[in-house]
Amino acid sequence: MKDEGGKRKRISEFAEGQRVSSLLLVERKEVLSKRDGSPYLSLSLRDGTGMVEARLWELTPDLEALAQEGRVLLVEGDVKLYNGRLQLVLSSLKPSEFSARDLRPHAPVPMEELTKGVLQMVEEVDDPDYQAVLKFFFSSRELEELVEVPGGKRVHHAYVGGLLHHLLSVARACLEMVSLYPRLDRDLLIAGALLHDIGKAKELAWEGLSIEYTDEGRFLGHVALGLEMVGSALEALEVPRLKGEKLLHIIASHHGEPDQGALKRPKIPEALVVYYMDQLDAKVSGFLSFVERDDREGNWTAYHRVFQRYIYKG
Amino acid sequence: MKDEGGKRKRISEFAEGQRVSSLLLVERKEVLSKRDGSPYLSLSLRDGTGMVEARLWELTPDLEALAQEGRVLLVEGDVKLYNGRLQLVLSSLKPSEFSARDLRPHAPVPMEELTKGVLQMVEEVDDPDYQAVLKFFFSSRELEELVEVPGGKRVHHAYVGGLLHHLLSVARACLEMVSLYPRLDRDLLIAGALLHDIGKAKELAWEGLSIEYTDEGRFLGHVALGLEMVGSALEALEVPRLKGEKLLHIIASHHGEPDQGALKRPKIPEALVVYYMDQLDAKVSGFLSFVERDDREGNWTAYHRVFQRYIYKG
Amino acid sequence: MKDEGGKRKRISEFAEGQRVSSLLLVERKEVLSKRDGSPYLSLSLRDGTGMVEARLWELTPDLEALAQEGRVLLVEGDVKLYNGRLQLVLSSLKPSEFSARDLRPHAPVPMEELTKGVLQMVEEVDDPDYQAVLKFFFSSRELEELVEVPGGKRVHHAYVGGLLHHLLSVARACLEMVSLYPRLDRDLLIAGALLHDIGKAKELAWEGLSIEYTDEGRFLGHVALGLEMVGSALEALEVPRLKGEKLLHIIASHHGEPDQGALKRPKIPEALVVYYMDQLDAKVSGFLSFVERDDREGNWTAYHRVFQRYIYKG
Amino acid sequence: MKDEGGKRKRISEFAEGQRVSSLLLVERKEVLSKRDGSPYLSLSLRDGTGMVEARLWELTPDLEALAQEGRVLLVEGDVKLYNGRLQLVLSSLKPSEFSARDLRPHAPVPMEELTKGVLQMVEEVDDPDYQAVLKFFFSSRELEELVEVPGGKRVHHAYVGGLLHHLLSVARACLEMVSLYPRLDRDLLIAGALLHDIGKAKELAWEGLSIEYTDEGRFLGHVALGLEMVGSALEALEVPRLKGEKLLHIIASHHGEPDQGALKRPKIPEALVVYYMDQLDAKVSGFLSFVERDDREGNWTAYHRVFQRYIYKG
Amino acid sequence: MKDEGGKRKRISEFAEGQRVSSLLLVERKEVLSKRDGSPYLSLSLRDGTGMVEARLWELTPDLEALAQEGRVLLVEGDVKLYNGRLQLVLSSLKPSEFSARDLRPHAPVPMEELTKGVLQMVEEVDDPDYQAVLKFFFSSRELEELVEVPGGKRVHHAYVGGLLHHLLSVARACLEMVSLYPRLDRDLLIAGALLHDIGKAKELAWEGLSIEYTDEGRFLGHVALGLEMVGSALEALEVPRLKGEKLLHIIASHHGEPDQGALKRPKIPEALVVYYMDQLDAKVSGFLSFVERDDREGNWTAYHRVFQRYIYKG
Amino acid sequence: MKDEGGKRKRISEFAEGQRVSSLLLVERKEVLSKRDGSPYLSLSLRDGTGMVEARLWELTPDLEALAQEGRVLLVEGDVKLYNGRLQLVLSSLKPSEFSARDLRPHAPVPMEELTKGVLQMVEEVDDPDYQAVLKFFFSSRELEELVEVPGGKRVHHAYVGGLLHHLLSVARACLEMVSLYPRLDRDLLIAGALLHDIGKAKELAWEGLSIEYTDEGRFLGHVALGLEMVGSALEALEVPRLKGEKLLHIIASHHGEPDQGALKRPKIPEALVVYYMDQLDAKVSGFLSFVERDDREGNWTAYHRVFQRYIYKG
Repeated sequence: MKDEGGKRKRISEFAEGQRVSSLLLVERKEVLSKRDGSPYLSLSLRDGTGMVEARLWELTPDLEALAQEGRVLLVEGDVKLYNGRLQLVLSSLKPSEFSARDLRPHAPVPMEELTKGVLQMVEEVDDPDYQAVLKFFFSSRELEELVEVPGGKRVHHAYVGGLLHHLLSVARACLEMVSLYPRLDRDLLIAGALLHDIGKAKELAWEGLSIEYTDEGRFLGHVALGLEMVGSALEALEVPRLKGEKLLHIIASHHGEPDQGALKRPKIPEALVVYYMDQLDAKVSGFLSFVERDDREGNWTAYHRVFQRYIYKG
Repeated sequence: MKDEGGKRKRISEFAEGQRVSSLLLVERKEVLSKRDGSPYLSLSLRDGTGMVEARLWELTPDLEALAQEGRVLLVEGDVKLYNGRLQLVLSSLKPSEFSARDLRPHAPVPMEELTKGVLQMVEEVDDPDYQAVLKFFFSSRELEELVEVPGGKRVHHAYVGGLLHHLLSVARACLEMVSLYPRLDRDLLIAGALLHDIGKAKELAWEGLSIEYTDEGRFLGHVALGLEMVGSALEALEVPRLKGEKLLHIIASHHGEPDQGALKRPKIPEALVVYYMDQLDAKVSGFLSFVERDDREGNWTAYHRVFQRYIYKG
Repeated sequence: MKDEGGKRKRISEFAEGQRVSSLLLVERKEVLSKRDGSPYLSLSLRDGTGMVEARLWELTPDLEALAQEGRVLLVEGDVKLYNGRLQLVLSSLKPSEFSARDLRPHAPVPMEELTKGVLQMVEEVDDPDYQAVLKFFFSSRELEELVEVPGGKRVHHAYVGGLLHHLLSVARACLEMVSLYPRLDRDLLIAGALLHDIGKAKELAWEGLSIEYTDEGRFLGHVALGLEMVGSALEALEVPRLKGEKLLHIIASHHGEPDQGALKRPKIPEALVVYYMDQLDAKVSGFLSFVERDDREGNWTAYHRVFQRYIYKG
Repeated sequence: MKDEGGKRKRISEFAEGQRVSSLLLVERKEVLSKRDGSPYLSLSLRDGTGMVEARLWELTPDLEALAQEGRVLLVEGDVKLYNGRLQLVLSSLKPSEFSARDLRPHAPVPMEELTKGVLQMVEEVDDPDYQAVLKFFFSSRELEELVEVPGGKRVHHAYVGGLLHHLLSVARACLEMVSLYPRLDRDLLIAGALLHDIGKAKELAWEGLSIEYTDEGRFLGHVALGLEMVGSALEALEVPRLKGEKLLHIIASHHGEPDQGALKRPKIPEALVVYYMDQLDAKVSGFLSFVERDDREGNWTAYHRVFQRYIYKG
Repeated sequence: MKDEGGKRKRISEFAEGQRVSSLLLVERKEVLSKRDGSPYLSLSLRDGTGMVEARLWELTPDLEALAQEGRVLLVEGDVKLYNGRLQLVLSSLKPSEFSARDLRPHAPVPMEELTKGVLQMVEEVDDPDYQAVLKFFFSSRELEELVEVPGGKRVHHAYVGGLLHHLLSVARACLEMVSLYPRLDRDLLIAGALLHDIGKAKELAWEGLSIEYTDEGRFLGHVALGLEMVGSALEALEVPRLKGEKLLHIIASHHGEPDQGALKRPKIPEALVVYYMDQLDAKVSGFLSFVERDDREGNWTAYHRVFQRYIYKG
Repeated sequence: MKDEGGKRKRISEFAEGQRVSSLLLVERKEVLSKRDGSPYLSLSLRDGTGMVEARLWELTPDLEALAQEGRVLLVEGDVKLYNGRLQLVLSSLKPSEFSARDLRPHAPVPMEELTKGVLQMVEEVDDPDYQAVLKFFFSSRELEELVEVPGGKRVHHAYVGGLLHHLLSVARACLEMVSLYPRLDRDLLIAGALLHDIGKAKELAWEGLSIEYTDEGRFLGHVALGLEMVGSALEALEVPRLKGEKLLHIIASHHGEPDQGALKRPKIPEALVVYYMDQLDAKVSGFLSFVERDDREGNWTAYHRVFQRYIYKG
C-alpha cells in the first residue's frame, strides 16, 4: 500500500491505496446501521474534479453534527477499491473556512483580468448606441455577477469566469478580423461578439459544484433569452431600429445553421464573423480541456462524443 | 378568336384570344417609342391572382395622366400571345374607386367573423394572467390592424385575414384536444395557440398586392419577433415567471424540431398540441389552396416543392 | 434496517433493507451449490415493473418443486445490496392463483371500456364499405384478442389494451377535426384512424412479462403487416378500388415522412389528420408515462433518448 | 437552308432548317383561325424521343379528318425556329399502319429474349414453394403483359420491356454471388431478385408515349404494391410462413435504408445481395442511358440531378 | 431609343436600345443564309461579365476572315430585344491587341501584391521543413503560373489571382489567431493555410473566359489533388513523418465535416483554425461578390442558392 | 462446481466454476501486497477472443520472472466470479513457444490461399500499365507483409489476412460483373478492386492482440493513404494520365457518398461496381461474424450499432 503523505489531493488524482487529505463538499449524508446495529456515516463528497463515495465507520455525535450537506470539510482517509469503484474510508473530519464556491473550477486567468478586459473592450466601441447597450450589460456592478457565470455546461468554458472568458476571446478574435476585412462594421462586431452568448447568464446556474440548466434555460435556451435581454435594453435605450435589428440578428444567427440551433443564417458579414469566431473559440477551448482531462496513454484522447472525433495530444 | 364579352375577369382566368374587362393595379409604367417615333405605353398590371404585361399603342395625354403607378384602373383589351407569354393590348383605360388593398386576396370567411371569433376565444380563458396577455394583443383596436396581416407568404393563408384565420383555427383545434387529454392546461393552451405566430404581424407586410418579408422578418423571423412581443407584454403585465416561461416556450418550440426552425423541442404537452395543430392547419390549408390553384388535368396536382409531394385532387 | 411490513410491493418500489412480500414471476431458475456442497436456489423474478435476482439459501424439495419457471409465486424476503445491485434473499415461497398475464401492466382504463368504445366508433361510420372493413377487424370475437395487444414496445402504450387505447384515442381526435375541417371524409378518417396501426397485432407479442417483436415484426414491421391485413380484407369484401386505395394510403403514410418510416407522404387531407393525431397521441402518452416512471428530484425528467429532450414535470 | 432529304427522322434529331419525314403521334389537335379568318391546324406531335409543335397552314377537310388525336401519321414538313423553339411546318400528312405502342422506346434486347430468360431463370429454382410463387407471376400468359411494363419513369429502364430487363439482370447478378458466398440461399435469392420490383407492374403505366404513375402507384408505391401482390400469392399457394416472410422481407428492404424508401433494413444476407445488385443495375443502366442522351461536347455529361453528379463519357 | 455614345461597355451593362462599343471574345461563329440566300454572321460573344448573341447582316469576306473563334474584337452595334433576350446587331468589327486572358475578371488587388504577399508570408515561417515545402510551391517561377488560377468556379474568388488572394487572406487571418491562442504551432498554421487549397491549381482551369473543372478535378477534387501534390513534396524534401502528417491532415480536414467534403474532422487545433478561416474568407468574399452582382431594388439580394439565404445589402 | 478437464479453452468460452488450461498473453503485470504483506500477482491476460483479469496468490521468484508482459504463457486455473466479472485464479504458469502473433485471430482460409489468389488475380490483368501497378503492390515480398494486415478494426475482416481476404473477394465479385455488363473495363475494374483499400496497410496496425489505428490512420484515413500510395506508384511507373486518374478515382469514390466518406461520387461504371461490391462484401462478412459472436437465445442477434439493425440468425 502506497502512502502519498498529507498534501491535499483533488478527487481526480485519487488512486487505490493512497492516504489522502482533501477539501471536499458534502453533497449527500446518510446515517446507516452496521450489522451490529451501531451507526456509520455514508457520504457523497465532491470537489471541482469529481465525486467519491465515503464511509466513516466510527461515528461520534460531534462528527455527525459537523458533516452537514453543503459544507466544505477538510477530510483525511484511505482510498480503497470497493465493488470496482474507489471509496474513501474516512479517518478524520475537520471544519474548513471554505464554501462550495471556492471549490468550483475557475477560468485559467484571474477574474480581474476578465472584467478589466471586458471594460476595455467596451471602451473600444465608438458608436454611442452600441456602447450604451454594452454598458447596460457590462457595468462594474453587473460584471460582479457575470464573472460567476460559466460559459458552458461541460464541453467548453465550464468554470467560474467562463462566460466572460469566452465573450472576451470571441470579441478579440473578431477585432483582429477588422484589419483584414475593412468593410466590417467594427462597433457592431464588438457589440455582437460581447453579447452573442449573454443569454447564458440566465440559462446556466451553479448548484453547489455542478452547472445546471435553469428552468428558463431549458424552456427557452440562451438564444431566446439573449434576444429578450438585449431586446429590452434596445428598447429602454431607444437604439435606432436598424442598428438594433442587426445586433439582434447576430444573436439569432450565431449558431450558423438552423439544425445547429440558429434561428436565421447569418445575413450580414458581421454575423458571419461572430459565428465563426464563436465556433473557433468553443472548439479550441473544448479541445484543450478535453486533452487536459484525458489520462489515457498514447497520442490520442478517448473519443469525444460531442465533437465526434479523437483528438491528437502529441 | 373567342370573345368572352364584357364581364370582369381575374388575370388567372385570361386566355389567348379573349377580350377582357378587369380591375387592375398599375405596378410599373413606362413610355416608350414606336419605330415611327410616336409614344406608346408599356405597363405591368396586377390583381390578386397574377401579373400581366400590357401595351397601349395609341397614347393620349389624358391616358398617360390616368395611368399612375399604384392606381387601380378599369381596363379593357385583347389578350394576345407574344413571345410565349400572354400580353394585354389595351383599348380602354378608366379610373376606378378601388385601391390596391381591395384587390388583395381575402380569407374565405368574413373579416368580422374572424375578429369576433378571436374575441370570443379570448373570453374562453379563465386564467386572469393569460387572459390579460391575450387582451394586450387582441383588443378591438389591435384587431383592426391584425386582420390585414397574412398568415404566410405563399404556401398557406397568404391573404388578408390569414393570420387571424390561422390562429383561430389552431386555437379551436387545440380546444378540442382538451376534452380528450384532460390533463392539458386549457388556458395555457388557448393562449399559446392564439399567440404562437403573432410575430408574423412584424415579419410579413403587404407591398401593393404582394406579401413581402420586412427587414426584421428576414433578420429575426417570426419566432424571435413573437418571443420579443410576448416577452414585453409579460413583463409589462407582471405575469408570474413560470406562467410566462411556459407561454414563451410554446412560441419557441412551435416548429417542433430544431431543423424545422424550433429553438427548443416541445417539453410540455401543451407545446406538443400547439405544434401538431399548427402543422395540421398549415398543411390542410396548403393542400386546399394548392389544389384550387392547380389547373392540370387528371387526379393529381403538379409537384408541390415545399410539401415535396403530389396531392390528390379527385 | 427499515422494515416496511407485509404489504405487497412492486419491484420498482424495492429499496435496500426492506422486508417485502410480492407476487412475482419465476423467469429463470437454477440450483447451485454452496461452499459446503449443499444446494441453494438462484432465481430471476419479475413483475410488470422490473426484474430482481433472488436467492433461497435453505432449499427443501417442496420449495424446489414449487419454484417452476413461468409460475407466479407469493414470495417474502429481504432486499439487500450485493455487488451494487439489489438482491432478494427469500424467506418464504408460496403458490398463488395468478399467471404471467395478470402481472402485465394494463391500460389505465378498463378493458371493457376500450372494446365498447371501439364498437361504438365503428357504428359511427355510415359508409357501408368502410364499416364492413372495420367490422372485419373489430368483431367482438376479434376484440377479445386485440385487447391483449400492446400499442408499443417501450415508449408509449406498452401495456395490455395499449393498441386499442391508442387506436381509439386517435380516432376520437380525428373525429373532432371533422367539425373544424368539414371537407374531410369522416368515414374514411375514422376507418383510417382505427386501422392505421392494426399491423401491431402481428408485430408485437407478449413473452411472459416482456413485449417482444415477432419474426414478421422484425422482417416487415407494422406498416407492411397492416397493409397486408387490410389489403386482404378489402379484397375479400370487394371494396371499390379507390376507397380501398385511400384507406391503404393512410396506413402507408401514417409515419408522415420517409425517413420516419412512411412509404409515402400523406397525399389526401385525411392521411394528414391521422398522421398528426397519431403523433400527438403517441407523444402525449409517451410524455406522461415517462414522467410517471421518472423518480429524479426537481422539475425535469432524465433525458428521453427517443424523444431527444428533457420533459418538464412541474 | 439545309435539306436532309426524305429519310425518317426522330424528333430528337430535328434541327432548324431541315426538311423531315417522320412517324409521329398526334397528341393534341386544335383548329385555329388565321388573321384572314381561314382555318389552320395546330398540333402537338410526339415520338419516343420527344415532342414538337406543328402547324398546317393550308387545311382541307380530308386532312382535318385524318389528324385525330391518338393516331400515328406519316408527316412531312420543314423545321423552323419560332420564339426560340423548333416548330414543324407541315407540307403533307398521310395515314400509317402504326399505333402509339409502336413508337414507344423498347429495351435494347429482343422481347422474346427477355421472356425466355425469365422463364429459364424460374427453372433454375429448385425449391418448390419459391418456384410456385415465381410461376404464379411469370407464366407465359402473364409475361405477355409484363413485357410491356417499363422499369422506371425516367432515370433507368424507361422503355417497353424495362421491368423484365431489370429483374433479369438483377437475378443474374445475384446468381453470380452464390458461387462467391456459398451460404446464400440460392432459391430465395433468385425469387427475391425476380420479384423485388414486381409492384412496378401496378405502379407505372403507359399513357400514349409517356410513362405515368397510376393512382395506386402514387398512393402506395411499388414496395407496398409488391408486398400485396406477393403476399396474396403466398397465401393462395400456402407457402410456409418463414419462407414467405423472408421473401416479403427482400421486397420490403430492397431500397436498403429507410430514407431511401426501405420499410426495413436488410436483415438476411440474401436481402443485402438483392439490394446492392438492384442498385448496381439501376445505376449502371442509368449511367449508360444518360450518357447516350447527352449531346454536349467534351468528356462529361450535364449534371445528373437524381444521381447528383457529372458522369464521364470519355 | 437611347444612345449611350461610344465608350466601351461590359456585357452586363448592356440594355435594350443602346448603341455600344465593346471588346468581346468570339466564342462561336456560324455563317447562315438569309431568306434571299445571302450570308450573314451569327456569333456568340463574351467578356468577363457575360455572353451575348450577335448578328452581322452585311457580311464581307474581310469581316468573315476577321471573326475567328477565340479572337478578341472591338465591336460596335445596337442592342435589341429579340425573343425576350438581348441581341447585338453589329455595325462594325475591328481587330484588337487583346487576348481572352485580358478579358478574364481579375482579383481586386494587383497581381504583384498577391505574389509579393505570398513570398513575404513564406518568409514568416521559421521552421526549415515547413518553409522548404512552401518554397517548393511558391517559388517566383511557380507563382507566375499560380497567379492565373482562380479560387473557385463561381461562388467566391472566381477570377485571375483568386487562388492566391484566398490563400493569402486565410494565412493572414490564421496568423492573427496565433496571438490569441499562443499554443498554436505558428509555422504549421501558416503552411497549412497557404497550402490547404493548393489542389485547385490542378482542379480548375480557364477555358477562354470560363472557369471549368479539369478531368482530374472532377475525378479527384482539390482535396485529393492537394494531398498528392503536398505528399510528393514532403517525400522529396524528406520532411519528418509527424510534421508531414499534420500538414496533410490540415488539407484532408479543411472542409470540417465529412458531409461537407472533409476526409477527416480536424483533430489538431491548427486544423480547426484553417477550417474556420477558410470558411470565413470564402463566405465573406462570396457575400461581397453576390451583393455586387445583384441589381435588384431594395435592401436584399436575390436568394443565394449555395449559401441558402438572402443577403442584406443595406 | 463443474470441471471441464484439461483441454485448452479460449477466453470467450470461460464460464464461472470451470477449471481451465489456456494459452494467454500477459498484457499487464503488477505485484501487489496481500493484507498480511506477502506479495501476489495481478495480471491482465488476453487471447484473440477477449481479456480476463487473473490473480496468482502464491508468488515465487521463478513465477514472477516468468510472467513478463508481452509473453504468451500456458496457464491453468479456476474461473471465479468476482464483483460481477470473471476472474482467473491461477494455479500454474508455464512457458510456451508461442508469440502474440500466434494468438491473433486469422482469416477463415489459409494464408497461402490468399496470397496465391491475389497473385493469380494479378495475372488476369492484360493491360500492362494496370498490371505493373498491381505488381508494384503485390509482389511475393510485399504480400508477406500484407498478409498480416487486418481488413478492419472490428466490424468486418478484423483478423490476420483480413485485408487480402477482402480485396480478393471484392475483385472476384467485380470480375463476375464483367460478363453481365460487357462495357466495363475489366482490367481497370480488377486493379481498382484490388487496390481500393490498400491504404489500410498504413491505417491499421496490430498492437499485441488488438487492432489499432496508426497516427497517419487517424490523421488521414485509408482513402487518403491509398491515394498517396497508388499515386506514387503511378508516377514511378509512368502510367498514362487518364488511366491513372480513373484508378485513383475508384479509390477516391469507393465509399459511394460524401457523407459515407467518399471524396467524389463514382463517375465511371467501374467505380460504381467496386463501390457496391465493397459494400456487399463488408456487410455480408460483418453479418456472418456478428452472428457467430452472438450468443443470445432466439432467432435474432443483439442490435448491431454500426449496421443499425438486428440480424436474423435462424
